[in-house]
Amino acid sequence: MNILLQMTARAIDEWRAELERVLPEANIATWPEAVSSPDYVLVWKPPPELFRRVRPGKAIFNLGAGVDALLALPTLPTDVPVIRLEDAGMAEQMAEYATFAVLRIYREMDVYETDQREQRWLPRPWRAKADFGVGVMGLGMLGRAIAAALVPFGFPLAGWSRERMSLPGVATFAGAAELAQFLGRSRVLVCALPSTAETRGLLERTTLGLLPPGAHVVNIARGDIVVDDDLVALLDAGHLGGATLDVFNTEPLPPDHPFWHHPRITITPHVAAVTVVADSVAQIAVKIRRIEAGEAVTGVVDRIHGY
Amino acid sequence: MNILLQMTARAIDEWRAELERVLPEANIATWPEAVSSPDYVLVWKPPPELFRRVRPGKAIFNLGAGVDALLALPTLPTDVPVIRLEDAGMAEQMAEYATFAVLRIYREMDVYETDQREQRWLPRPWRAKADFGVGVMGLGMLGRAIAAALVPFGFPLAGWSRERMSLPGVATFAGAAELAQFLGRSRVLVCALPSTAETRGLLERTTLGLLPPGAHVVNIARGDIVVDDDLVALLDAGHLGGATLDVFNTEPLPPDHPFWHHPRITITPHVAAVTVVADSVAQIAVKIRRIEAGEAVTGVVDRIHGY
Repeated sequence: MNILLQMTARAIDEWRAELERVLPEANIATWPEAVSSPDYVLVWKPPPELFRRVRPGKAIFNLGAGVDALLALPTLPTDVPVIRLEDAGMAEQMAEYATFAVLRIYREMDVYETDQREQRWLPRPWRAKADFGVGVMGLGMLGRAIAAALVPFGFPLAGWSRERMSLPGVATFAGAAELAQFLGRSRVLVCALPSTAETRGLLERTTLGLLPPGAHVVNIARGDIVVDDDLVALLDAGHLGGATLDVFNTEPLPPDHPFWHHPRITITPHVAAVTVVADSVAQIAVKIRRIEAGEAVTGVVDRIHGY
Repeated sequence: MNILLQMTARAIDEWRAELERVLPEANIATWPEAVSSPDYVLVWKPPPELFRRVRPGKAIFNLGAGVDALLALPTLPTDVPVIRLEDAGMAEQMAEYATFAVLRIYREMDVYETDQREQRWLPRPWRAKADFGVGVMGLGMLGRAIAAALVPFGFPLAGWSRERMSLPGVATFAGAAELAQFLGRSRVLVCALPSTAETRGLLERTTLGLLPPGAHVVNIARGDIVVDDDLVALLDAGHLGGATLDVFNTEPLPPDHPFWHHPRITITPHVAAVTVVADSVAQIAVKIRRIEAGEAVTGVVDRIHGY
């Protein structure tokens, strides 16, 4: 079979070597040097001309969990299945990041960081977890892994998703009708939603205002789910206590953006979950072999819902 | 029965009220207002004159996990059992702190904190956990809770204790003979040892030098287990990567201490685990009722080993 790989210049050699190792039966070409009529194309933020010049025969693999950028490409063929990475080491990383952020907020480690800089020894009193609900928005593979990692720590956990889900140890809420109730009990809100027509701009003045006073927003999904100005306004008004943001409407975050130096915003440079090459290639290889054998695969993107 | 309670002025009313609620059958007096011949004394860093004026009939309860300060008191009666708090909410807090610290170090969140202040967008590559061993020193109730909390995150876990222990998911090492092997595989070292004649000064130039290059020391036990100057020397020499310290040889940490502004030391003001009054009183009440019924209790301090 023929595979075309498109990746950033920095990473393409590592991906190619791993593909050759795991799929020795495949002919592997890399964009833009060699273009043919591949059975499979593996892409990461491809340029629009790729799909003008290449006609994938069987499937397009997106080398990441979020397909919003790929689906927005006007040249993307509509009659070839798009398959996204499921987990591939990302769920574990998301769970680590969310656990770190929730514990940091609950234990007021951000306050102690400031206290150390200002040479202040000031122990804060213990806080009961009963008053410290954690809400996970989005209960796909990543959101479920986040919730599962948090269960042992004993926070009152809630989850919100488009369609109703059931998860052990998590109170679940579904759809627009139950959003206010979910937000109202989320002292920490962890956003793990895909970026779709329904979720873009979802966290704006009204919805963020439904969070309890002092609430903290953790966004490790996509920057465009949050309306930046509304987030800053609610932080400055004192309604929100803080935000931990890994993703942004524009990345890298522009130098003049107010997030950089806001005293209650913590920033990381889109690293909550990075693609792990070996895990990703192993997953893609399994799916390719299943397709070749005429079997069904998971992770096929629903173009209507956008994820 | 008669109980004498000694506590800091700030907290004594809360302790007294909880004791009266949970042990309505007891007569409760507070130091120094009322002194009699109590059956039980409950103390937290008592002044030496307490045991000159008070003769406890049945037991002394230490209102914390560490009994090093109490055992160092020259007036402490030698023929009355000293009972320490076991867990009482502290194990959960220790596990939270250690999980937070280990994830922060593994995910390089300390680096991203600096990057944000200097407005630098610089994602770091993913790191395999196989190269990131975590070692827990001290496998008492607190150390075991820390190890159990870390198990789901998939780090190669090791534990070290005076006597050999067996823990699921943890490679265990025992005694002086296996200390070097344990330290050599601990990319992050979490210290949860009691302060005893054997452990004071244990983490000094030689032992810290056995940690792998770039290792990070987390001390949430007692400050006197670490030799401050040796820790700073190994950090400055580049052998150690960092330290997260909650406890110190002198507390509060003196204003002129080099830890405050060392770029690779993170400080918190002895808050890794605070005593939770309700949990502690519930535990003490159970023990008092067992003693009154002539039954054995756990948590009796071994004066030879000092914990």
